[in-house]
Amino acid sequence: MAKFMDVHSGFVGVTPEQLAEAHDADLKIEAEEGVHFERAWLDPESGKVFCLSTGPSKEAVMRIHERAGHPTTEIYELTTEV
Amino acid sequence: MAKFMDVHSGFVGVTPEQLAEAHDADLKIEAEEGVHFERAWLDPESGKVFCLSTGPSKEAVMRIHERAGHPTTEIYELTTEV
Repeated sequence: MAKFMDVHSGFVGVTPEQLAEAHDADLKIEAEEGVHFERAWLDPESGKVFCLSTGPSKEAVMRIHERAGHPTTEIYELTTEV
Repeated sequence: MAKFMDVHSGFVGVTPEQLAEAHDADLKIEAEEGVHFERAWLDPESGKVFCLSTGPSKEAVMRIHERAGHPTTEIYELTTEV
């Protein structure tokens, strides 16, 4: 199992409730790909969202985000954490 | 006190030890600006580092990174976390 950070753009002006809804949509289906979204952070001014997850591959994480309605292609495998 | 994510590029091939050294350099002086670096994650393949911090302002966080020897201009204020 690996750890990932993915980045979304375009979430300008998104509310905390909308972020929670988007995150819940991931959580509902994440197990189907062996993924778990640990946390998500939003900067509504720049529209950036950062999602920290674990899973078997980048592709599995991206498939969940895509099926949940918020695809991204920007994802990084985090091999070190301090 | 606000929460921030900053992003560094160019850390291709950096080792876990080197990331720990860089993080320690931040921790040693962070209190001088009222900043705390909670965590840092590295993808040595793309060379990206993500740092999660708390502090009084983006500028304070960036000043610590600059003084510690690894400046960045890419920083986001995280107003929501889920």
